[in-house]
Amino acid sequence: MTSHRSQRPATIPDVAREAGVSRSTASRALADYGSVSPDARERVHAAAAKLGYRPNQLARSMITGRTHTLGVVVADIQNPFFAGATRGIADAARAAGYQVLLANTDEDLTQERSAVKMLRDKHVDGIIIAPASSSSTAHLVALREARCPLVLLDREVPSLDTDTVTVDNRGAAEDAVRRLLEAGHRRIGMVTLGGSGEERAAQEGRHGGADRREETDRHRAAGRADGGEGPQRGHGPDRRRAEPPAQVSTGVERAEGFRAALHAAGLKDPDTYVRVGVHGQDPAALTTELLRLPQPPTALFTTDSLIALGALSAVQEAGLRVPDDVSLITFDDADWTSVIRPRVSVVAQPVQELGARAVRALVARIEGRSQARSEHIVLDTTFVSRDSVAPPPSR
Amino acid sequence: MTSHRSQRPATIPDVAREAGVSRSTASRALADYGSVSPDARERVHAAAAKLGYRPNQLARSMITGRTHTLGVVVADIQNPFFAGATRGIADAARAAGYQVLLANTDEDLTQERSAVKMLRDKHVDGIIIAPASSSSTAHLVALREARCPLVLLDREVPSLDTDTVTVDNRGAAEDAVRRLLEAGHRRIGMVTLGGSGEERAAQEGRHGGADRREETDRHRAAGRADGGEGPQRGHGPDRRRAEPPAQVSTGVERAEGFRAALHAAGLKDPDTYVRVGVHGQDPAALTTELLRLPQPPTALFTTDSLIALGALSAVQEAGLRVPDDVSLITFDDADWTSVIRPRVSVVAQPVQELGARAVRALVARIEGRSQARSEHIVLDTTFVSRDSVAPPPSR
Repeated sequence: MTSHRSQRPATIPDVAREAGVSRSTASRALADYGSVSPDARERVHAAAAKLGYRPNQLARSMITGRTHTLGVVVADIQNPFFAGATRGIADAARAAGYQVLLANTDEDLTQERSAVKMLRDKHVDGIIIAPASSSSTAHLVALREARCPLVLLDREVPSLDTDTVTVDNRGAAEDAVRRLLEAGHRRIGMVTLGGSGEERAAQEGRHGGADRREETDRHRAAGRADGGEGPQRGHGPDRRRAEPPAQVSTGVERAEGFRAALHAAGLKDPDTYVRVGVHGQDPAALTTELLRLPQPPTALFTTDSLIALGALSAVQEAGLRVPDDVSLITFDDADWTSVIRPRVSVVAQPVQELGARAVRALVARIEGRSQARSEHIVLDTTFVSRDSVAPPPSR
Repeated sequence: MTSHRSQRPATIPDVAREAGVSRSTASRALADYGSVSPDARERVHAAAAKLGYRPNQLARSMITGRTHTLGVVVADIQNPFFAGATRGIADAARAAGYQVLLANTDEDLTQERSAVKMLRDKHVDGIIIAPASSSSTAHLVALREARCPLVLLDREVPSLDTDTVTVDNRGAAEDAVRRLLEAGHRRIGMVTLGGSGEERAAQEGRHGGADRREETDRHRAAGRADGGEGPQRGHGPDRRRAEPPAQVSTGVERAEGFRAALHAAGLKDPDTYVRVGVHGQDPAALTTELLRLPQPPTALFTTDSLIALGALSAVQEAGLRVPDDVSLITFDDADWTSVIRPRVSVVAQPVQELGARAVRALVARIEGRSQARSEHIVLDTTFVSRDSVAPPPSR
């Protein structure tokens, strides 16, 4: 083992002695707090440099109340969307003189509550969060009540009056689905995941779970028969019915955009081809279900790049081709979408910019530079047309 | 704005009053520290529950010296390898009763030093780190000297005596390249990125940078002519010469395995087709360079899945096909590798298990359950044979 030096780290009393000032003066000078003469301040800083004094952040933060640290709570760091947004957050925070503490909730409310508590315990100056639920938000309301600056990223919570940074999910989804309609498609499927298992379980309890559980078991068996070599995102409970989409605002809004486009095209029953799973569920299985319908969809709209991978996997398993048999548009311009053949047409979100704007909004709030009213920043998405959309097959 | 409740949070004096004990007794009982009678402990906990007392972690950690928080420093959260390892860390930490604070360094030493300092300031009980350099490690040595439990993940630092969790990078690379040799390939390229720009700049200063800068500019212009629609990982400085590989142990070991396989097959000049870039550099440009050689490689070995995407992009840009014209094997079983056609053969690392083992080693160290000597855990990789390897084209 490395030998342990006996050298003791310099303390505030050491610095005070070296500078010839009182401990309280040294303490105030080092913490940049309260009244200290310029001369004393200079001597204290010189003494601190000479002794290699390293401020005790814990003690200092108890004096100044600031840690220059931002807490960030993301829903799924394995999703390239959040990995990219996190990169944007880190870069912008560094530029603003703040450090970032990151926590991942895996779309789980219990983990989210625990992460928020931990970040408060670590005395972050404010929190950026992509909440796992837009309804179970008591812990976020408590943050606001404790006057902890809070910015919601990617997702809105209607009942919570705080700054938000999002994209126009409804408009972007409607635009993407309109493109599929314009290519001639009438049977358009949507596959989405979202909402925490915990919350869904509670809903199931309310709505009577027995029937659903039976269906779920049947569906699981079907899923196993597929072999399932496609990407897996864990093992959440299965759900198969079209139903109110997951309790995350992005999912809700994208589904609204999907329905609005179909409605405008005069199509009835827009939910026929909608499959909503919970986080962790295999999107390939949901897609396979759609492809096995007597009248399967000729086009698919997926709400993130991981779901798109699952959908592609299911299309291949079914012996079908994109775009000849099935067209595909997905949210999120993941790096593989332009390398795979055919290249996938996507709704590109400004991921790093979303993170950066969230940081700027949060820092403005921390430093008291914001207006009193909450700010709602909505960034533009870009449709990137590639090779995954074609007219439906003539049958 | 949400109205702010005037209700003051309960403090230790409140709890002491309610329980009818002294403040110091209440404090010791709540912190589970020092001697308190069972009766007093019970009354204090009942009073705390009644008043909704929420312990001040800051104060408590000053008494117990434990925060039940692990610091994790990863090199690039946008790389699926680290996203997966982070997931493994989070799950194992939760199972062990610890929370995780995550910091991302983007392979930058300055950010790494700052992240380590921040995590110490936040009084984590120990740190798991994938260091950006295996040589610039004074900040890690300082951690060890301060007796902060430390586990290295994915990467080793020869000069640092501490626990490590890695895979057999050398053996796995040698095995992968042997498979390319067995398929008949003799011109095998390797594309890798690693090492921080900062460190490379320092090396350049030592070895004379002028010639290199000229080459770099020439190369940049060539890169632009390609159009470069492939995935980009930022804008690091360009490097083109085969040279001692990046100062990260994984890169060094994988290059050693690559050379050992070629050497065993009796091939000379194994570095002819080696391209080493810095983090942030476009791997597609490095690959394009190889493909434009008069005698281009007929097979490529890439050291992570992001580099593989860049290489695939360059192969497509060059009008070539995998595996007919160029075979490919990459480290890391990213989710797209089994969905893209042809499916890519990979060296799969047990990413989540790497994270989990790092947590177990760290927690054992924190809780004093480890042996005195440092432990070096080396996990197995798995070669997953798919469709991206074929014999070289006959020319």
